[in-house]
This record gives sequence, C-alpha cells and structure tokens, in this order.
Amino acid sequence: MAEGRLSRLLSPRRIAFIGGRECGVAIEQCRRAGFAGVIEVVHPKREMLAGIPCKRSVGALDAPPDAAFVAVPPEATVDVVAELSAMGAGGAVCYAAGFKEAGAEGEALQARVVGAAGAMPILGPNCYGMLNYLEGVTLWPDVHGGERVERGVAIVAQSSNMAINFTMQDRGLPIAHLATVGNAATVGPADLIEAHAADPRVSAIGVHLEGLPEGAERFARAVAAAHRAGKPVLAFKTGLSARGARATLSHTSSMAGGAAAFDAYLERLGVPRAASVPAFLETLKLLHVHGGLPGGRLVSMSCSGGEAALVADTAERVGITLPDFDASSRAALVAALGPGIAIDNPLDYHTYIWLDQAACEACYTAALSAPVDVGMLVLDYPKAGVGDETGWEMATDALIAAARTTGRPTMVVASLPECLPSAARAHLMAAGIAPMQGIEEALIAVRAAALAGAGLARAGAEAAVDSAHAPRPAILADGSGRSLDEYRAKRRLAAVGVAVPEGALVASASEALAAAEAIGYPIVAKAVSASMAHKSEHGAVRLGLADADALHEAVEDLLALSGHVLVERMVSSPVAELIVGIIRDPLVGPCLMIGAGGVLAEVLADRAVLSLPADRAGIEAALRRLRVFPLLEGYRGRPAGDLSATLNAIQAIADFAAAQGDGLLELDVNPLIVGTDGAVAADAFMRLAEEREVA
Amino acid sequence: MAEGRLSRLLSPRRIAFIGGRECGVAIEQCRRAGFAGVIEVVHPKREMLAGIPCKRSVGALDAPPDAAFVAVPPEATVDVVAELSAMGAGGAVCYAAGFKEAGAEGEALQARVVGAAGAMPILGPNCYGMLNYLEGVTLWPDVHGGERVERGVAIVAQSSNMAINFTMQDRGLPIAHLATVGNAATVGPADLIEAHAADPRVSAIGVHLEGLPEGAERFARAVAAAHRAGKPVLAFKTGLSARGARATLSHTSSMAGGAAAFDAYLERLGVPRAASVPAFLETLKLLHVHGGLPGGRLVSMSCSGGEAALVADTAERVGITLPDFDASSRAALVAALGPGIAIDNPLDYHTYIWLDQAACEACYTAALSAPVDVGMLVLDYPKAGVGDETGWEMATDALIAAARTTGRPTMVVASLPECLPSAARAHLMAAGIAPMQGIEEALIAVRAAALAGAGLARAGAEAAVDSAHAPRPAILADGSGRSLDEYRAKRRLAAVGVAVPEGALVASASEALAAAEAIGYPIVAKAVSASMAHKSEHGAVRLGLADADALHEAVEDLLALSGHVLVERMVSSPVAELIVGIIRDPLVGPCLMIGAGGVLAEVLADRAVLSLPADRAGIEAALRRLRVFPLLEGYRGRPAGDLSATLNAIQAIADFAAAQGDGLLELDVNPLIVGTDGAVAADAFMRLAEEREVA
Repeated sequence: MAEGRLSRLLSPRRIAFIGGRECGVAIEQCRRAGFAGVIEVVHPKREMLAGIPCKRSVGALDAPPDAAFVAVPPEATVDVVAELSAMGAGGAVCYAAGFKEAGAEGEALQARVVGAAGAMPILGPNCYGMLNYLEGVTLWPDVHGGERVERGVAIVAQSSNMAINFTMQDRGLPIAHLATVGNAATVGPADLIEAHAADPRVSAIGVHLEGLPEGAERFARAVAAAHRAGKPVLAFKTGLSARGARATLSHTSSMAGGAAAFDAYLERLGVPRAASVPAFLETLKLLHVHGGLPGGRLVSMSCSGGEAALVADTAERVGITLPDFDASSRAALVAALGPGIAIDNPLDYHTYIWLDQAACEACYTAALSAPVDVGMLVLDYPKAGVGDETGWEMATDALIAAARTTGRPTMVVASLPECLPSAARAHLMAAGIAPMQGIEEALIAVRAAALAGAGLARAGAEAAVDSAHAPRPAILADGSGRSLDEYRAKRRLAAVGVAVPEGALVASASEALAAAEAIGYPIVAKAVSASMAHKSEHGAVRLGLADADALHEAVEDLLALSGHVLVERMVSSPVAELIVGIIRDPLVGPCLMIGAGGVLAEVLADRAVLSLPADRAGIEAALRRLRVFPLLEGYRGRPAGDLSATLNAIQAIADFAAAQGDGLLELDVNPLIVGTDGAVAADAFMRLAEEREVA
Repeated sequence: MAEGRLSRLLSPRRIAFIGGRECGVAIEQCRRAGFAGVIEVVHPKREMLAGIPCKRSVGALDAPPDAAFVAVPPEATVDVVAELSAMGAGGAVCYAAGFKEAGAEGEALQARVVGAAGAMPILGPNCYGMLNYLEGVTLWPDVHGGERVERGVAIVAQSSNMAINFTMQDRGLPIAHLATVGNAATVGPADLIEAHAADPRVSAIGVHLEGLPEGAERFARAVAAAHRAGKPVLAFKTGLSARGARATLSHTSSMAGGAAAFDAYLERLGVPRAASVPAFLETLKLLHVHGGLPGGRLVSMSCSGGEAALVADTAERVGITLPDFDASSRAALVAALGPGIAIDNPLDYHTYIWLDQAACEACYTAALSAPVDVGMLVLDYPKAGVGDETGWEMATDALIAAARTTGRPTMVVASLPECLPSAARAHLMAAGIAPMQGIEEALIAVRAAALAGAGLARAGAEAAVDSAHAPRPAILADGSGRSLDEYRAKRRLAAVGVAVPEGALVASASEALAAAEAIGYPIVAKAVSASMAHKSEHGAVRLGLADADALHEAVEDLLALSGHVLVERMVSSPVAELIVGIIRDPLVGPCLMIGAGGVLAEVLADRAVLSLPADRAGIEAALRRLRVFPLLEGYRGRPAGDLSATLNAIQAIADFAAAQGDGLLELDVNPLIVGTDGAVAADAFMRLAEEREVA
C-alpha cells in the first residue's frame, strides 16, 4: 500500500536535516509551525545549525529518521540517500537539482539515486519537498504562507514554484498536506494521492500536473482509491497548449489528442480540471466544504439587478443551469418579499429587506428550498474600516440559518475576491458555508464539484474495473506497423459487428459484373490498395454506377490503378455521415474520436473525443455533443437517423480498439453512413503494430 | 457640449445636501475626502446635520449650489428639483427610488422630475450619485472604498451596487470619477463619457451598461469623442444572456442579436468588453498605465516552467499571440542566461539568476527587446511577514530598469491576485509598469487594450462619420411590414449590384419554355409567393430541369401552388454556399449576419455578426472568422471561390441595408452561391416597413 510506504515520510516523528542554509530555513519553519517531534542535523563542518548541534555524518544520527531533508550537492545526494536507506529511514526529500531534468549525465545520476534509495521512498530530486500543516512538518527550504490546521485539502504539485504560491493564498483554504514531486524518481502524484486518500484529516485532493509520470493507468487507479475513500480529486494541468507543452518537461501534450484527449480521460475518471490558479484553489475550497455535488443546478440571490444579470451571464458562459423556482419556493418568496418583486433565478431580492434579518432569513430559506443542488448569495463586504458592517453580518447570519433549515449546500460569493475578508470567511466556514472569492471561480467550482460528485458516485467497483482496463500510453513510432487496405479493414470490423456494405473483391471486369449481379445496382467501385491514402483524390472511387456498362468501364480504369477492385452496394441517401477514429495520445493513450463526416463538417472540425474504454452512455453523450447531432434526430422535418445502430457501431469500434490496445496504431472509419435504418462503415482504414497480430 | 452641461455637477465648489440620514453620511464622506468647497444643508426640522446648521428650505440657501444631493421622498424630489433649477443650480443627484423602475405611476412621477429639472442635469433618479476623487466630492449616501487621486480612470455605472464594489477594489486602480446614472432620466452614460473625456486628469473610461438608455448612435458619438480626446473606453455589459436580460431593467438583450450583435457593435466602435468585475478593473488598470496597445503580441517571463506553461495555455484560451524571439533578442538572452536555458516564449529563465539583479536586468532587457507590443514578468510576492523580500525587490527593480531601457509597455503579473501587495503596486505604478493581479485577467486586459488601441487609431474623422451613420435602434413590430417575393426581392438586390441568376417570371408553361430557351438548360423553376416561407418544404422548388419536358411538367405543378413561377438558370457546382441576412437587435439596431449556408452549416450555426455600417475590411474579417472560410480559399486541392465577388455582394447588401435603416425589417439572401467566378444570390427574401418605400 502506498499509504504504508509513504506514511513515515509524510507524518514523521523524527526528522533529520542534512545540509546547510536550506536546512536552517527548514528547521526554523518547523519550529514556527510547532513540530513536536525530534529534529537532528547533519553537517560535516558546522557546530550548530539553527541552534541545534550538528552530527558529522548520517551514521552518527541517534536513530533512523522517519524523514530526512537532504540538501547537499547531486553527487553527495547519492551517498546520503544510500546511508539513509541502509539505516532504515522512512523516506527523504532530495532538494538538489541537476538530475534527469539536466540531460543525459543527470539522468544517469538520478538512476544511481534511485538505486541507492532501494525501497525507501524519496520526493524529488529537484523539488522543494513537503509541508504537513496537520503536524507542523516543513521539509521545505523556502518561505511558505500556510498555517496549522486540524483538517484540510491535500495538494500535490509537479511545480515547486507554483506550490509556494498556493501556500500564499488569502482565501481561507485549509491546506493539510502539500507535496512536490520534482522529477518523481520514485514517488509520483499517484502515490501521494493514494497516501493522502488514506488520511482521515484530508477532505479533498488537488493535483497540479505537467504530465503523468507514473502513466495513465497508475493515475487512474489512484483516483479510484481516493474516490473509494470518498475524496474528490481535482486536476490542474499545465502544458495543454502546444506552446505550453514546449514549456513543460514532457513535450508530449502538443501531439495527438492534447487538451481534448486529456479532458476525455479526466472525465472518464470523474476528475474535474481547473485552468487557473484561483479556480484551482476556489474549487478545492468548495470541495473541502461541500465535497462533490449531486449536480450543477444553482440558485443565486443578490440585492442588485446588475449582479443578478452578471451571475446569469457568467453561468451561461461556464455552463451552469439556473432552474426556475418551483411553485412552493416561488410562493414562499412572494410571501417573504411582497408582490412588488419579480421572482426569478438569479433572484434580485432588492435592498428593501436589508438590515431586516428575519426577512432576509425568510427570503434565503425560500430560495434555498428550491429544487437545486447548491445555492449562493452574492455579497461583497466593504473594505476594512470604511464603515459599519452590521448589514453584512445580519445577511450572513440569516444565510447561515437558512442553510441550516434547508440543509442546502450554500456559498457566499464575492464578485471581487478581495471583498470577502478573513473574519467573514472563518465565520462562514465554521457554519458549513463555502466562502467563495470571485463569481466566475465560484461557478467554475460548482461545475467541477458536480463532475467530482459523479466520479464519487461511480466510485468503487466500476472505478476499479475502469482503471484496470485503462490503456497504457506506450507510443509506437508513427512509421511502424502494417496497413490494412479497405477490404481487409472492413472484414476486421465486420467480424466485431460493424455493418459494412455488401461487396466483393474482384480482379477483373467479369468478376466485377458477376458480383454486381448478386449485389444489385447502383454499385460503388473502388481501387483497393493499402498504400493509397486519399482514394478519391486519386480518382480511385466511382460512385453510383447504374448498370453493367458503367461498371465495366469503371473497373477497367480502376484495375489500372491497383490489382484489385472492391465492388460494393451503393449506400444511399444518408441522414448523416460520421467519422469514427482512434487517436493515440502520448499522455493518456488511445482515444476514440467521433466527428461529423463529409468535407464541410471536416472543415468545421465538429469533433468529440472519448477516453477508452468507453461505455454506451459516454458514447451517446459524446455523440450528442456534436453540433451535427440534430441531423440524427431529424432536423426540420427530415428523416431521423438510426441512433441505436449508430451507437452499436461506435461501441463495437471502441471495444475493438480497447481490446487491441497497443496492437492498433490507427483506425479510421470515414464515413460511417447513418441511415434511417442502420449505420454502415462505407470506408475504413487500419494500421496494426507489426509485433502483434490482431486476434 | 455635454462637458459644459455637467461640469458644475461633476466638479462643484458649492454643494447643497437636501435630506436627512443619507446626507449626514455623504457630508461625513466629503469631510474625510477633504472637500475644500462650501457645503450647505437643507432640512425642514433639524437644527444641525453632521455639524452643519440646517437651512429650512432650498430658497434659504446662501447661493445657488453647483451640485445638490437630494435625498427626499419621490414626491418631494419633484419640488426640490424645481426649486434648484429655478434658482440656477448646476445639477442634482436624485437618490430616491420609486420612479420609472417602479411601473406606470413612477414613470409619470419621473416625467414630472424631468420637467421640473428643465435644463439642469440630474443624476438618477434611483441612483447613488457620484464620487469625484480628484476634489473630494462625495455626493454618495453610503460607504465607498476610494481615496483622493491626482489622475485616474473614470467609471460610469448603471448599477449603484456594483459601483460600490468597484470602489472596494484592492488593486491599486486610481479612480478619478465614479458616477451612477440610475434611471438616466436626463443624464446617461454617453453624456458622462463625453464629460469625463474632456477632463485632462482622466486616463481611461470604464462604463457598466445594462442597456443603451440614450440609444446606440448617441453612445457611439460619445465614444468617438473620448477617442478623439485620446482616451480608451472599456465596456462591461451585464444582461447579455437571456436570463441575464431578464434580470436587467431593459429586457432587450434576450432578443435578436444579443451578445453577438452587441460585441459587433462595440468592435465597430473600438470598445473592448469585459465579462467579469476583476477583468473590468484590471483592464482599466492596464489602460490607465499604458493606454491602448498597438497590438496583442506578448512576451512573458517567469522563473518557473509551470508558470510559463500556464501563461501559454491561458494565452491560447484568451487569444493572445506569443511570438518566437527574433535573432537579436534570442542572442541577447543566450548571453544573459548561458547555453543551458531553452530560449522560448513564454520564457522560463529559471532561478539561477535569482538575487543577481544585473543578470535579471540583462535577461529582462533582452526579452523586452523582442518585437512585441507588451511584456510581462510573472511574479507572486510572498505573504506579508513570512520572509525576506529582497529577491522580489531586486527582480522588480531589474524589470523597471529593463522597461526604461527598452521603452516596452510592461506588466508584473501575479498568478494569484492577492500576491501583489499594495506597496509593490505603488512602486511599479510610479515606474510606469502595470501591476496586474491574475494571469487570465492580465491577458484579457492585453487583448482589450489592443482592441482599444485600434479604436483610438481610427479616432477622429472616421469615428465621427461612423457614429453619424450608426443606425437608430427603433424597433418595428415583427408583424408589420410588406413582404417581397423572391422575384421582387432579387430585382431590388440586382438594382444595387448583387448578382442574381438570369431568369424570368412566367404565368404559364409556354412562357416558361420560351424563357428557358433564352436562358439555356438546365433550369430551376420555383413557385413565387411572398407568403410562402420555406419553399423547398412546400415542394415549390424544382432544380436541374434538363429539358423542355421536365420544365413543362414542373411548371404545371408549380402553377398549382401559386400564380407565378420564376424560371432561372441553374447555378452549378458551388465552391460554397453562404447565408447573408439582416438581423435587428433592439439594443444596437440592424446588423449584418454572414453564415455558412446549406443545411449542415445551418445546423452547425457557423455565423458572424457585423454592426452596420460595415466596411470591406470588417466584412472580410467576419468572413474569415467563419469556420467554412477554408472552402473559399480552396480546401484540399478543391477550386477556390471568387473572394472579391463575394465581398462585393456582401458589401452591396450591407450598404443597401444601412441606407434603408428602419425601412428594412428583414432581408435574407440564402444561399449566396460562391463560385470560382462570381457570387450569385440564388434565393432572397425581403420585408419592408409599410410607412416607407424603398428608394
């Protein structure tokens, strides 16, 4: 269990600091944080460090430390780690840089550190280490802005610099653990997620990712473990854009699926993704207070029409629904506010009841009793010292009472992050209300909490199965592999239940005519060749051949292009054409891409990406996300497509791809022709890895 | 000049406060702000208010006030305003609510206030009034968070509640003026924009809009005046979503063009739009420090790869370009950082030079010398008191020196808004560097400043013409007007230079055959009727009639549907089909909508909206925004469309619509068939206002 493996390192009773200046800083921080355990210091020359007498060597320590902070040069780090491991230390932070991130030599040095560590876990090398605010452990060479807490979120970060900034937040987010992984030589984000998931004092887990150093499957398993422990996981991925990827250590994200594939992967795991530091911290705050939400239906209250409109505009942009009030909550609101006030969501309850706490409580209680998943009150506190805060305190207490009465997850949201002072935040937190700083961040957090809620609901068995099937992101050289021509590719697909047009592979005009008699006109004839990419651009496709003469002439031409011709039934009057393909993302592995087919749709790039394995619900959701979906439902009185056959075909392709795993390098069904009755793969291409034959 | 009309009200030397509690608050605020002028108070019963002896009536004032703050009940407001106007006061703030916003009775009362005011300008009724932080004037009944400044931005707001919050910002944004317009009975946002534009102490103007109470043309004129004065204008519109519009006084935005039309209108004016309170304030801050920018090309520096990646990801989302370094700046960076560091934009310059001010200055100078419009350093300051800030101060001073050397507009950007303390902000501001709080807000501000820069560049003559031509937003009932059938609509379009297919209107098969002989087969035949909406759904369109027999049969059928049949040349093999139509937005008036035609494109809603009048550059930009544009350029070896003919056709339609103004209720050209040589309006519909004939 990762939990057992990291428990001494993350919650040490005995710490050894090995090094100079950085150790001095770290020791002072430990003292300030009130660490209650034993601290020893190792330095070859100095008598004292931060008021503690120095041992001359690791061997001279009184006892094996649970955790060691190692701040010595790279070469020396190897020896120190070896000694610590040999003496039975619980783990070490390796602060020094100059390892894998610094090229070939550093990579070799890192391999030696890993060897030296053996079974002993190390954070880094090339990282700041960890902060445990539950017990005042600061294995950290620099300033940080956190304080001791009883309970809070755990944060794992690949960037130490961003981790420092997280601790500097002025948002009342209680941080229990913060750990940086640096080069993640032996401990990665997944290990830490599992370890934090096992800590009952951790409410939610936020992870900053530059890549997936332990692989997509390992990360998925860790998320599943956290979900089984009832803890939502939030991701903050940097390097999703091409330029962003260039700026990260792993340059992978700029290829293949990129952001779409990563989001599809996270969605399958039930992990929301934040895209800014404030959104990351505010979402963690909401998850800390309310956990995952059953859904994203929101009721908003403010005493200003401008703010109500702003919430509505922001909700539309973020994708949050503001349902209308039901009859009973509407009636209660009319009773509380009188007939003059328009009852709408977002609610502008005006300022008439300001300073009337009972009326405010009645209004808030009525609004929060609406059938929603979460409620919010827009409230910006005045700057300290500019005036009497009675009105704000009364509104806050009225909201607290209303939240208690209704049991509705509730937020106070300031439109300006600086307009929710720490005293108010503490008061709200203590009452179980989330103090949210920024309207946009608050709504993004609601959306994320709803996704996390779905992930938690799916937790346990399914999540486990899911992650077990998660494909490995092993990448095969693009050049490699064996291409299957259209005919063979279609046979593979037919074998797994994908409908293909009735047809035959022929080598002569006479064979073609015989086949056509059996199939029936009109006929499609195509030159077949695994090497030919865009057949139509080679004039290798002849559609709607109406009779034997036309077919004969076409086949003669096509045989000049390749030795074989595929003669097929013409699939007529499609409701819609789709592209169904497999893309290989270097980070999360194979993904299914569903898109609108036909040149125009291709230009319009109407696509959705699904992480594999994909279930029918996920496939249908992706299909409905396509802007062409209305065509499948019958647009403007046109005939509707066969949705069920379409889903069956896509599911079959997805299952085939998931089963093949790395054996399948490329798969493209383009177009999948959706008719009123059935969905047919009219063209297909496939490339298989040489080293494995498809079963 | 509005400037003259409002100057006494906005910069009063003599103020009269008329009313009770709210006046007491306002007077205290004036004192605290150090207002140097004369204050008189009117109250019918009280002896003293805020330490000032009360006059019994307005008539008893020593002299006509430049500005009066009127906080008495609605009915009494009418009389007080009448007295003030009669005695020659410079203007008044009407605080009381219960006027137009409160229904018919209130509307009547407001009309009486307007009558009583005569030529005297009033803010409100139903508003908080105004704050002049240049001279310590606070005609304001409540707390505010601002301080005296020598120079700063002017903010105009329709929502008083949001205006209060603006003053509570902890962002170092210097606010010179803040005014709320409430019901805008006699003074609206445009009047205030013009007045503030004339104040040399105002750097930029931000306006919160719920609607355009003075109309689109008046607002456009005010913006043009501000631009001529060299002052960028920033809009913050609430109520752009359907629900948001419901929450605003003007329920218009939920109709017609909505957000797209409003953005098109603002783009024509060169006015950027902020979508959140933080983005609004941060953008104003950037405009205050650097004004409009020549473009949005950005160079970013940080000492963390994670932050560099975050900037790159955010830039892609926001639409900011991060150009590669040119040879000379690259060489200078290599010289400053050594060979080990990857030179890329965003630049991760690593922490090796941290605490080496000379090296930092060399690095920053090299990066800022790149050919960009603005530069930024990502820098989050530690929380107060957690440690030594030397490194941050050195980095800041190095950046200040680099910005001076290069003359590049420069920002310091904290990834967390709370991580840029006020002392650092003041230091940076004094050195002409914009202290920006939040990476996303900073990049949004850069984009906005680039748009504002374009607006300022167009200022003067063109802006004046522009606004003079700006269409009035007068709305005509949808039912009204006279519909023109396809034949008549096409004749109108042909008259203004839009190409239509050669054709003839016939009443019999024999006429049809004669016409077809002249035109040449294949022929298109359509039943013509102004009442028939979707012709194709009525089977009223017959395409590709190859010969006389086919035409004869078709015409016989069509004559059964309507008395007349349009016989036309078949427009063959289009490169692309477009929709060009006029939509009437209640807020900004008629707009031109360009979209991709054909059912699929219709489903995909590939559209762009242009505010009228539109010039060729704007039309081409909108056309290029369409996702189908690649088809016009020749997609995957397909033939390219006739771009120039397409632009000519759209320009002709736009000019026609602009010239007709309110006379044109509806216009739809669908499809405009773009060929390799020419662009033809294959179908058209038009509805004209009854009361005006098209010239």
